[in-house]
Amino acid sequence: MMGNHTATGEANSTLCSPDRNRWKGTSMSKWMQEWSTAAVGPHDLKLAERPLPEVGEHDVLVRTLAVSLNYRDKLVLETGMGLDLAFPFVPASDMSGVVEAVGKSVTRFQPGDRVISTFSPGWIDGLRPGNGRTPAYATLGGAFPGVMSEYVAFPEDWFVAAPKSLDAAEASTLPCAGLTAWFALVERGHLRAGDRVLVQGTGGVALFGLQIAKATGAEVIITSSSAEKLERALSLGADHGINRSSEDWVERLYQLTADHGADHILEIAGGAGLGQSLRAVAPDGRISVIGVLEGFEVSGPVGPLLLKSPVVQGISVGHRRALEDLVGAVERLRLKPVIDKRYKFAEFPEALAHLDHGPFGKVVIEF
Amino acid sequence: MMGNHTATGEANSTLCSPDRNRWKGTSMSKWMQEWSTAAVGPHDLKLAERPLPEVGEHDVLVRTLAVSLNYRDKLVLETGMGLDLAFPFVPASDMSGVVEAVGKSVTRFQPGDRVISTFSPGWIDGLRPGNGRTPAYATLGGAFPGVMSEYVAFPEDWFVAAPKSLDAAEASTLPCAGLTAWFALVERGHLRAGDRVLVQGTGGVALFGLQIAKATGAEVIITSSSAEKLERALSLGADHGINRSSEDWVERLYQLTADHGADHILEIAGGAGLGQSLRAVAPDGRISVIGVLEGFEVSGPVGPLLLKSPVVQGISVGHRRALEDLVGAVERLRLKPVIDKRYKFAEFPEALAHLDHGPFGKVVIEF
Amino acid sequence: MMGNHTATGEANSTLCSPDRNRWKGTSMSKWMQEWSTAAVGPHDLKLAERPLPEVGEHDVLVRTLAVSLNYRDKLVLETGMGLDLAFPFVPASDMSGVVEAVGKSVTRFQPGDRVISTFSPGWIDGLRPGNGRTPAYATLGGAFPGVMSEYVAFPEDWFVAAPKSLDAAEASTLPCAGLTAWFALVERGHLRAGDRVLVQGTGGVALFGLQIAKATGAEVIITSSSAEKLERALSLGADHGINRSSEDWVERLYQLTADHGADHILEIAGGAGLGQSLRAVAPDGRISVIGVLEGFEVSGPVGPLLLKSPVVQGISVGHRRALEDLVGAVERLRLKPVIDKRYKFAEFPEALAHLDHGPFGKVVIEF
Amino acid sequence: MMGNHTATGEANSTLCSPDRNRWKGTSMSKWMQEWSTAAVGPHDLKLAERPLPEVGEHDVLVRTLAVSLNYRDKLVLETGMGLDLAFPFVPASDMSGVVEAVGKSVTRFQPGDRVISTFSPGWIDGLRPGNGRTPAYATLGGAFPGVMSEYVAFPEDWFVAAPKSLDAAEASTLPCAGLTAWFALVERGHLRAGDRVLVQGTGGVALFGLQIAKATGAEVIITSSSAEKLERALSLGADHGINRSSEDWVERLYQLTADHGADHILEIAGGAGLGQSLRAVAPDGRISVIGVLEGFEVSGPVGPLLLKSPVVQGISVGHRRALEDLVGAVERLRLKPVIDKRYKFAEFPEALAHLDHGPFGKVVIEF
Repeated sequence: MMGNHTATGEANSTLCSPDRNRWKGTSMSKWMQEWSTAAVGPHDLKLAERPLPEVGEHDVLVRTLAVSLNYRDKLVLETGMGLDLAFPFVPASDMSGVVEAVGKSVTRFQPGDRVISTFSPGWIDGLRPGNGRTPAYATLGGAFPGVMSEYVAFPEDWFVAAPKSLDAAEASTLPCAGLTAWFALVERGHLRAGDRVLVQGTGGVALFGLQIAKATGAEVIITSSSAEKLERALSLGADHGINRSSEDWVERLYQLTADHGADHILEIAGGAGLGQSLRAVAPDGRISVIGVLEGFEVSGPVGPLLLKSPVVQGISVGHRRALEDLVGAVERLRLKPVIDKRYKFAEFPEALAHLDHGPFGKVVIEF
Repeated sequence: MMGNHTATGEANSTLCSPDRNRWKGTSMSKWMQEWSTAAVGPHDLKLAERPLPEVGEHDVLVRTLAVSLNYRDKLVLETGMGLDLAFPFVPASDMSGVVEAVGKSVTRFQPGDRVISTFSPGWIDGLRPGNGRTPAYATLGGAFPGVMSEYVAFPEDWFVAAPKSLDAAEASTLPCAGLTAWFALVERGHLRAGDRVLVQGTGGVALFGLQIAKATGAEVIITSSSAEKLERALSLGADHGINRSSEDWVERLYQLTADHGADHILEIAGGAGLGQSLRAVAPDGRISVIGVLEGFEVSGPVGPLLLKSPVVQGISVGHRRALEDLVGAVERLRLKPVIDKRYKFAEFPEALAHLDHGPFGKVVIEF
Repeated sequence: MMGNHTATGEANSTLCSPDRNRWKGTSMSKWMQEWSTAAVGPHDLKLAERPLPEVGEHDVLVRTLAVSLNYRDKLVLETGMGLDLAFPFVPASDMSGVVEAVGKSVTRFQPGDRVISTFSPGWIDGLRPGNGRTPAYATLGGAFPGVMSEYVAFPEDWFVAAPKSLDAAEASTLPCAGLTAWFALVERGHLRAGDRVLVQGTGGVALFGLQIAKATGAEVIITSSSAEKLERALSLGADHGINRSSEDWVERLYQLTADHGADHILEIAGGAGLGQSLRAVAPDGRISVIGVLEGFEVSGPVGPLLLKSPVVQGISVGHRRALEDLVGAVERLRLKPVIDKRYKFAEFPEALAHLDHGPFGKVVIEF
Repeated sequence: MMGNHTATGEANSTLCSPDRNRWKGTSMSKWMQEWSTAAVGPHDLKLAERPLPEVGEHDVLVRTLAVSLNYRDKLVLETGMGLDLAFPFVPASDMSGVVEAVGKSVTRFQPGDRVISTFSPGWIDGLRPGNGRTPAYATLGGAFPGVMSEYVAFPEDWFVAAPKSLDAAEASTLPCAGLTAWFALVERGHLRAGDRVLVQGTGGVALFGLQIAKATGAEVIITSSSAEKLERALSLGADHGINRSSEDWVERLYQLTADHGADHILEIAGGAGLGQSLRAVAPDGRISVIGVLEGFEVSGPVGPLLLKSPVVQGISVGHRRALEDLVGAVERLRLKPVIDKRYKFAEFPEALAHLDHGPFGKVVIEF
């Protein structure tokens, strides 16, 4: 399924000549810069030059404009997360860029198109791949190579047209963080106008959840342990903020909703715990559990699970069609992803370090 | 909402005269037998005579023919389950009987009709009542009085026509055990022909789950720690049995399904645990958590919850419209509830004791 | 099921004495004004004095503050619409008012509460009543009596709390027009942020559709044959207006959506026809057919019905739980129903005549 | 997207040598027989010899074992159905066969695997491709070449593993007729045990509908104008048969269902008409409109469409994941497709002629 991404020589595909002029310099460079690591562990990242990837018949060659980081990128680098990584390993999964060349069988894109990557290549629509014994977890920057390169060449099926209303850095935040919130609330969650949505925290997925829920006409309550972050969330449109460190957030939620509870909870796994969310959810409500996979358990009392009969569903990003829907919604609703800080390509280590400090929204590298 | 069930004197409603002959004796008795307790605790049950209940304008008077017991009935008697019980408390929630008289505004039933009770009176269809802070748990044999009486008088809205294809004892098993399985698999679970369903155990809900799933064209795998119960389950139509005490049931399930896992799991809370079910479930599958409410926690690893994205939903019986659907399906599919043992009215204590010994299907009292 | 609405004498229910002072005058009047007709046909409406209705055990007595008219009210008066009307017949179905007294078993309301009526009394949630042979069409101002009275006494189940954010006239537009649009787009239609919604016309349901769709983050395209009405619709938030009399609206829709078509069409039956909507709908889209019932057929080509596989669903108002959801959404989203003109109680005939002239939004009578 | 199906010479892909022995003769023949036509019209079909197709990198070469015919095949040959056909045009869309060779990038199949084709290549799961202006109708034996060849070479994505429980002729009936019924009733229709399903006629889709509905625990009522076909349908498991030529089938349905009507109607477009189905459907029921696309209109009264609020949905076959689900269900439920008559490869014209005589089930060509 995947493109011939190991760059071992001359690209033998059709490089559409009229577009050569877009490449750096008057004649296209055959070399590019790329961040990679030779082994799992935190201290091994290095920036090196490599030949440009070969472009197969179904591939598009994309010049990277921005990469958005997720905390998972850090975990993969430091622990491997049990994945079968190929070394040298190029990290990161979410990018936006511009198509520079296309293989001869490519039909969906042409040079000059702005695109974003998909987190789970090959999952186009409908049910997720994999089976009960071995869930699918083949993502960019994991089982597949990552995107911290000046160029990538992947099958055209792995890309989606970028929204015209966003710059490259903003667009790069959609494939994982944006889609996770959209998939939880809209594609699987069927969020409705007037619903009460509780969002835990102010990270990348949480702030997308806030923005998408507001755009859908929901009432949004956000929790945080930082008064300052709550202020910023309110200025983004949240209807209410609850400071988790100074009050019982479930009790406060009851008060804010006349005891109704939350129709939908965006639960960041490893936070306050499923137990509190089960207390907080409205009857027949929904708890979307999102988050990283390392070492956490969910647990909670069976009483409210039975008596309120909520749906508890884990959400692990989503399919390409939903990403296309999100792109359309972003354009039509003029949603602006929240970027906490933009780093330069050379500052990748600093950007990774930022992830440990609870960013308000996303951390992005601009190329 | 509820009928005037305190029996303080003469029934002032219209007692349709042609039906008087059905009553005991030629003139209708004004007295009836009833099991009740004066306080929470195991040793206080007694059988006493009481006046017949008064029949309000919207009520039907029903002569009890059979009562089906649930383990919950035992817990309510022994612990109160935190409910605000009225004493003398009459236990049990599920009954079938025959309408003896109707109040003047009653339109859905007439004397002579065979009926069954509803577990959650007033929940007719759609979303469940209650709110996030205070889930609804107003059931017969709990916040409402129970049915271990020769007669009950409740609003007509609390009853459903009994299936013509079942005897009274069989019909009495539908309101709680039957409806729980139906609600989990069909009403909320949208079970489809060809789905793989894993049912944990051989209790009342589990065997209904087995029968309903088979009737829907599913492949059914049942787990038990008893080889003899597995044999009986296979003879009821289960496709496979897994002995939980002698093998890793999840591994065995993988083998039986070519690694697919189970599309639907009927998880009896407090058994092997949600963690095992999360391992066993297929991607985009469903885990219905059912069971009693006392003292259990659900817990499991977040990894498969995220990567397989199953729906985990607590199921607490269901609404009246679904019970009507179940009655229709039972009639058309000729489903026969599994009754482990039938007791006489006077043997109520022995029947309760039976619940502690893991019945294969239901325990029923015949009047 | 229904209250004892024939006013034959003294109200024998508990009239809560502290609330008597709210009634007109210091001692509550026993008489009220009411519009009614003695036979089907246009010329027989008269305003007369009648005794106040009796308040049954489960009833609430409501003083009418506003009545919202639907074109159907006119059809019922003029043709009877095949309904089994009781004469003298009081027309109209949608009202808002204030509770003046409650029967002794009433639990959901108390005197002083602002309420609105439900269009289909008794349909609380879930599937609609009736059967295939005889669909349910028991509505106020039809099989049940209407609301063009200074007071009505109906079972408490027939009312919903009015939104605090609306005045009485605005609130009276929700039970039929508001709920129809909400039920089509949200309850049955699962409208999502970013969806493209096409609304036909600028009547009451259409403008609710416009407002609800915008509040849900949809892109809204409205069609009309009046340039002036399109202007007004744009000022209410519509993204695009198409003048049906001067252009091929389907072709224009294709252009506005880059050939995608409409994800959801609110089709006013008897207008341009289902055939055009089948051309206009996106693959896997939805066409909600709403409208009056007199004499229309739907028809269209089978080609796009098969190849685009849209859902075509007739929508006939909706259930009480959805009305409660709408009330919540109206409050939280600050939706303001569009009233074309407000009339006085005495001007009922003029208000009815207004319905023939294509009102922009609703026509309301204030009491 | 599609394989390189023009047979211009030597296949340059990797032909797995161990499997060469499966080919006809000891050395694989380079020539094959194929039915084709040089122009639209009934009289031009001829059987000719052609070189074997070239097998591209992602293709599988499949030796045809059986082809199942649909009435649409006849329409395409006779009228072109407005499609942009390539000549010489090879007809027919549904086949089963055995994989003879695979391209070097193929991962899902290996030589020796039994496979069936997909009707709409490239529609893997989820929403259908295409847009509002131009619905997708790219099928085998239409925009793509057909399968009346001894060999076909198509991308591996266009195939699904055949069910082990069927012979080749039976398996060939699944891609269009089987999947249409499954998609209508199960994938989109969420059929439930106990539902009442009305199936119109006894053609290929209708009999699959009957079998699938019975396997799902539904009660099935079938209509036909032939007493003899009704007898055969009853012997296949239908619960009731209604002779459309001798009685009002809607009235009879009411009687059979105690006025409930049909929860699901499989409406063969162009038959008795949507109007009758709208009369027959239960409240909140579903009418799946299937059938060929030539020249038909659907029409019906708006009254029952509004008052019963059924979903009317056109169904045009379905996606690959649903075909995989159907294959699994066929295996686990031991469903046996009904074949009216099996023809030999040389008898293709006779088989086509059979389609005009209302076959009971499917007409299949065995190679």
